[in-house]
Amino acid sequence: MQSQKIPVGILGATGVVGQRFLQMLQEHPWFEVAWLAASDRSAGQAYGEAVRWRLKTQIPPAVARMTISSASPQGAPRVIFAALDAAIARDLEPQFAAAGCAVVSNSSAFRMHENVPLVIPEVNADHIALLEKQCWRRESGGYIVTNPNCSAIGLVVALAPLQRNFGIESIFVTTMQAVSGAGYPGVASLDILGNVIPYIAKEEEKMEEETRKLLGRLTGERVEPAGFRMTAHCNRVAVEDGHTESVSVKLGRKAAPDEIISAFNSFRSTPQELQLPLAPAQPIVYDNAPDRPQPRFDVERGRGMTVSVGRLRPCGVLDYKFTVLSHNTIRGAAGAALLNAELLKVQGYLS
Amino acid sequence: MQSQKIPVGILGATGVVGQRFLQMLQEHPWFEVAWLAASDRSAGQAYGEAVRWRLKTQIPPAVARMTISSASPQGAPRVIFAALDAAIARDLEPQFAAAGCAVVSNSSAFRMHENVPLVIPEVNADHIALLEKQCWRRESGGYIVTNPNCSAIGLVVALAPLQRNFGIESIFVTTMQAVSGAGYPGVASLDILGNVIPYIAKEEEKMEEETRKLLGRLTGERVEPAGFRMTAHCNRVAVEDGHTESVSVKLGRKAAPDEIISAFNSFRSTPQELQLPLAPAQPIVYDNAPDRPQPRFDVERGRGMTVSVGRLRPCGVLDYKFTVLSHNTIRGAAGAALLNAELLKVQGYLS
Amino acid sequence: MQSQKIPVGILGATGVVGQRFLQMLQEHPWFEVAWLAASDRSAGQAYGEAVRWRLKTQIPPAVARMTISSASPQGAPRVIFAALDAAIARDLEPQFAAAGCAVVSNSSAFRMHENVPLVIPEVNADHIALLEKQCWRRESGGYIVTNPNCSAIGLVVALAPLQRNFGIESIFVTTMQAVSGAGYPGVASLDILGNVIPYIAKEEEKMEEETRKLLGRLTGERVEPAGFRMTAHCNRVAVEDGHTESVSVKLGRKAAPDEIISAFNSFRSTPQELQLPLAPAQPIVYDNAPDRPQPRFDVERGRGMTVSVGRLRPCGVLDYKFTVLSHNTIRGAAGAALLNAELLKVQGYLS
Amino acid sequence: MQSQKIPVGILGATGVVGQRFLQMLQEHPWFEVAWLAASDRSAGQAYGEAVRWRLKTQIPPAVARMTISSASPQGAPRVIFAALDAAIARDLEPQFAAAGCAVVSNSSAFRMHENVPLVIPEVNADHIALLEKQCWRRESGGYIVTNPNCSAIGLVVALAPLQRNFGIESIFVTTMQAVSGAGYPGVASLDILGNVIPYIAKEEEKMEEETRKLLGRLTGERVEPAGFRMTAHCNRVAVEDGHTESVSVKLGRKAAPDEIISAFNSFRSTPQELQLPLAPAQPIVYDNAPDRPQPRFDVERGRGMTVSVGRLRPCGVLDYKFTVLSHNTIRGAAGAALLNAELLKVQGYLS
Repeated sequence: MQSQKIPVGILGATGVVGQRFLQMLQEHPWFEVAWLAASDRSAGQAYGEAVRWRLKTQIPPAVARMTISSASPQGAPRVIFAALDAAIARDLEPQFAAAGCAVVSNSSAFRMHENVPLVIPEVNADHIALLEKQCWRRESGGYIVTNPNCSAIGLVVALAPLQRNFGIESIFVTTMQAVSGAGYPGVASLDILGNVIPYIAKEEEKMEEETRKLLGRLTGERVEPAGFRMTAHCNRVAVEDGHTESVSVKLGRKAAPDEIISAFNSFRSTPQELQLPLAPAQPIVYDNAPDRPQPRFDVERGRGMTVSVGRLRPCGVLDYKFTVLSHNTIRGAAGAALLNAELLKVQGYLS
Repeated sequence: MQSQKIPVGILGATGVVGQRFLQMLQEHPWFEVAWLAASDRSAGQAYGEAVRWRLKTQIPPAVARMTISSASPQGAPRVIFAALDAAIARDLEPQFAAAGCAVVSNSSAFRMHENVPLVIPEVNADHIALLEKQCWRRESGGYIVTNPNCSAIGLVVALAPLQRNFGIESIFVTTMQAVSGAGYPGVASLDILGNVIPYIAKEEEKMEEETRKLLGRLTGERVEPAGFRMTAHCNRVAVEDGHTESVSVKLGRKAAPDEIISAFNSFRSTPQELQLPLAPAQPIVYDNAPDRPQPRFDVERGRGMTVSVGRLRPCGVLDYKFTVLSHNTIRGAAGAALLNAELLKVQGYLS
Repeated sequence: MQSQKIPVGILGATGVVGQRFLQMLQEHPWFEVAWLAASDRSAGQAYGEAVRWRLKTQIPPAVARMTISSASPQGAPRVIFAALDAAIARDLEPQFAAAGCAVVSNSSAFRMHENVPLVIPEVNADHIALLEKQCWRRESGGYIVTNPNCSAIGLVVALAPLQRNFGIESIFVTTMQAVSGAGYPGVASLDILGNVIPYIAKEEEKMEEETRKLLGRLTGERVEPAGFRMTAHCNRVAVEDGHTESVSVKLGRKAAPDEIISAFNSFRSTPQELQLPLAPAQPIVYDNAPDRPQPRFDVERGRGMTVSVGRLRPCGVLDYKFTVLSHNTIRGAAGAALLNAELLKVQGYLS
Repeated sequence: MQSQKIPVGILGATGVVGQRFLQMLQEHPWFEVAWLAASDRSAGQAYGEAVRWRLKTQIPPAVARMTISSASPQGAPRVIFAALDAAIARDLEPQFAAAGCAVVSNSSAFRMHENVPLVIPEVNADHIALLEKQCWRRESGGYIVTNPNCSAIGLVVALAPLQRNFGIESIFVTTMQAVSGAGYPGVASLDILGNVIPYIAKEEEKMEEETRKLLGRLTGERVEPAGFRMTAHCNRVAVEDGHTESVSVKLGRKAAPDEIISAFNSFRSTPQELQLPLAPAQPIVYDNAPDRPQPRFDVERGRGMTVSVGRLRPCGVLDYKFTVLSHNTIRGAAGAALLNAELLKVQGYLS
């Protein structure tokens, strides 16, 4: 008897995010890995031999035996998860969309394109509709849907209930980002042991523009970016997984601390209503401990899909300040794309 | 022939800051260590046996052989460097001041007392005059002078030329602080390996109130705190030495980036004019590299007394943002107190 | 309906190993936590408030609400897991045994006592019989059973099939041990960041004597220690969980590398035969990769109960060398004691 | 007036060891940097722009402005320090020797060549004479002299007085090596944070064969390798600088612990007798503390040229065990080559 699962392919399967896709798909109820592609250097090799696997669980044995394909649409399944460098994505993703594939991308290449949905299902599931404006959609049925940068996603999930309940006027955020966000080999150990690197190329720009698009409003034609003021300081720290962010916000209306905490804890949205397989029961957990959240202890909450918030207190410049933590390669990358694909499936975009 | 140097004592000599005092005093041209005190548990022991020395240089041999005294003014020299926990300092420092000692303190106990100078010689050397209002000064000649918290000091040195040249209206700062700031044993390794701790007890309050006092104005009677708005987010990271800070500021008047950089680099003040022994030739170095300053590479600039600044760029909420780095146990603690003592000597307060 | 599970108590419930007991017992099919004890300081408090929980999973909610008892046998269940400092264990464990409890101890206090079984169920399950010689057993039915030091256990599991198949004449081992082995707060971050500490108090002595007892032979009266020569070098490194060990051995007879690898991989013993709940399907996994095992990637193999071995190659002084990795707070502590308790239950010692 | 210093060139100037050469040559009394070469990619650029400087001191300003030459002997000075990958060294170093240069190499390419001296001046200064057997020496005056691998050098310095005083029959060593030994970018942070890597390619082979050559005897024609048995286990740990080694030895004759400690502390040799500028006053310091040496605290002893030893105790397999620490990029690389060059100068080989 054949599997009823939807066959999916992974573009960029040997990278750190590609590995997370494979780990998270291992037991997925709807999708199954049918095709892997990576750089030409790896194509033709068995996955288990080509990859430098950097996760704590072992390579799924069935995946280890799969042969890596070259990165072209011939022979690829109709649903593609892409975990590519931006420069390569810019070239490859349109080829797959033109060939009729649903490209569910974690790459930054098309996030800010006006016809490409940039989506967190808890935040702006309605933006998915933008894909109808893509020429590929009309011509071949294919399209590109994206999720945000790993540093933007935790922030925006945490901001969503604040925007919904109180409005947001200004955002200040300083990130302390894990090394896994830079891929493999990524950050050299001589650069990060006992160190902080106060710079990640293009990260601050991405955080600022993606946050505005994600929290923007879909009008008939396009997404009108949110109008708040925003600034991001991005830093790299010696943490394996989990981006920690110090956030201050000015709200649109006065709110008491317990209203805000309640807004965090009671936040539910489309993925919870649709009971998507990867949707965390509680997208945001507010931790009352005075010194939490912390990556070492909280990053795996909700199987890495829950955003942890803590330390809400008044801010001397804006209204409130708090700390946000999210798993950068699960909620911030592979899990983000998978949740998008689950949403697409339920909405009929994968058939 | 007897030494012409001024004999000094160290209160809290076995702690991390006490060790820095001893390291920095090893070759000091004006001061020499004549007396060490620590907790009753250590009193009577040879320093070399009582201390858990945590610096990369070896214990000065002469110091290793000194016997630790109990922490009372009998037999203590007239100049005392104090590196005590606040609770102990609250009790002990007044005893030494009452006994006629110049207490040059790194403790937080009296920093915010209205008659106690809180001083960074480059920033507010004139505040030293406050000590004349202390009852001890009148009665025994003794007094207490303090330096700020290790996280405030780098920030305030960096802000001083901005305030002087452009005025400051708002400050946003997120710190990523080294573990040596918590003393020894301090932060447990299970708490910080692969982790960020988004909380340091009372640190944010200290940063905010101390910054206002340091950049405040001495009127005849007292220090009028600076009127800017300010907020601090304090985090602990897996760095041995060096506090890194992401800072945004709103200035009092428009300023171009090159004006600001020039203000940083050309900043000189009292310690440089007086050529104090520990004064760095350049109190602030602006580093043009896109990814600096970094604790691993820049913390020892100016023998740990120079504050490094980098990454000046526009801020989407306030006017500008930049990164500040300073050595938390040198510029931020022992070196701060020593520079205060050098200033006191030149101004005639140690004779 | 009442639970059919055996109620168990934890002595030293707030420590790092105590926490592991609670985490591992959360879903245990045979045992359920009914009683917690810790120092007098914590007694009377809710566990969730008294503990400084240092694991990545959250505190089991039912446990968080339990009240901590004082550490005396009154009111304690008949099965006690002990995770105490040796000095305290020396005093307390006999009290519980005298009161009729089965004390399944991770403490070092009685490991080398001639009437106390020191057991790894895969290695020397027959040594359990020693407990019949304990006076408590005769008087109250109580007894003490121990598991070895966290650094000895991985080594001895790896050596067991070599001893069984080829004999062992000499053992050389250098450990690189995780900080969680020192408890909490344990190793100060200033001691271990960017560092190696080439010393752990009494660790080398424990490894050497415990290894000999574990691989010794139970004669009617006592355990005759194994006769091999052995030396251990113990080091602490900046790893959270997982002790890595460089091992050389001289065997009793010639063996080819593939015989040895086969001996590792095919090793099965009592816990596998009895299908004890925590028994790993494969107690030892030999990893063929040239650079494994590594704590970051392999420590959780077999839910932390599998010992990983790799890099078998000839040794220029003894016969062979290889690397061993095991999880120090699971296989090396809480999981070791739990497996002992499972063995005791099956053998009828818990009823 | 012209400098009287000997102009020297650096091959591989942008690497981690190349940087150390430049740092250490900044104030050298005999040598001055006149020429820098690196890969073709960097040639023609200013050094300050081409290099990714990874040291805590700033780039020497004069060096920052120098233009990088291409790596060919034309225009190069007669004294060349080489810090090249083995594959490149195999090709380039003979070209420079053939062109008449004294190539003082840190590369592994020719260390084991029978006509190439492999030298630690404290250990086997007499082996320098081997260079007279090199064809280049006869033809152009040029030659190659090498220093050992960074992991061998600390060990061999520590073994030298033992061999001299007692003889050595067997050596067991486990290394815990710093990441700077792998160059830059070298070890990825995802590979080493919270981890131990029990493998460094070819390192164990190098340690074993180089140790035998270094402690071998120069007969008229060649070096007869030392005859002891030896085995090395090499591991990488999360340390920036400093290789720590757990060592056991069997000596040729019985020796009491105080004889051995005295042999360590009183060891003096050619560099001390000749008062070479980089020679540490005491090549080996035995530290009596129970938990030393440690890389974080002891690696800079003797400006990084002193080897620290500690923890001497009986070994259950061989005679004694102890811990050795040395700075891998100073004593183990750049400082090693510089000390060789100083020896060559005094012996008249640089004129």
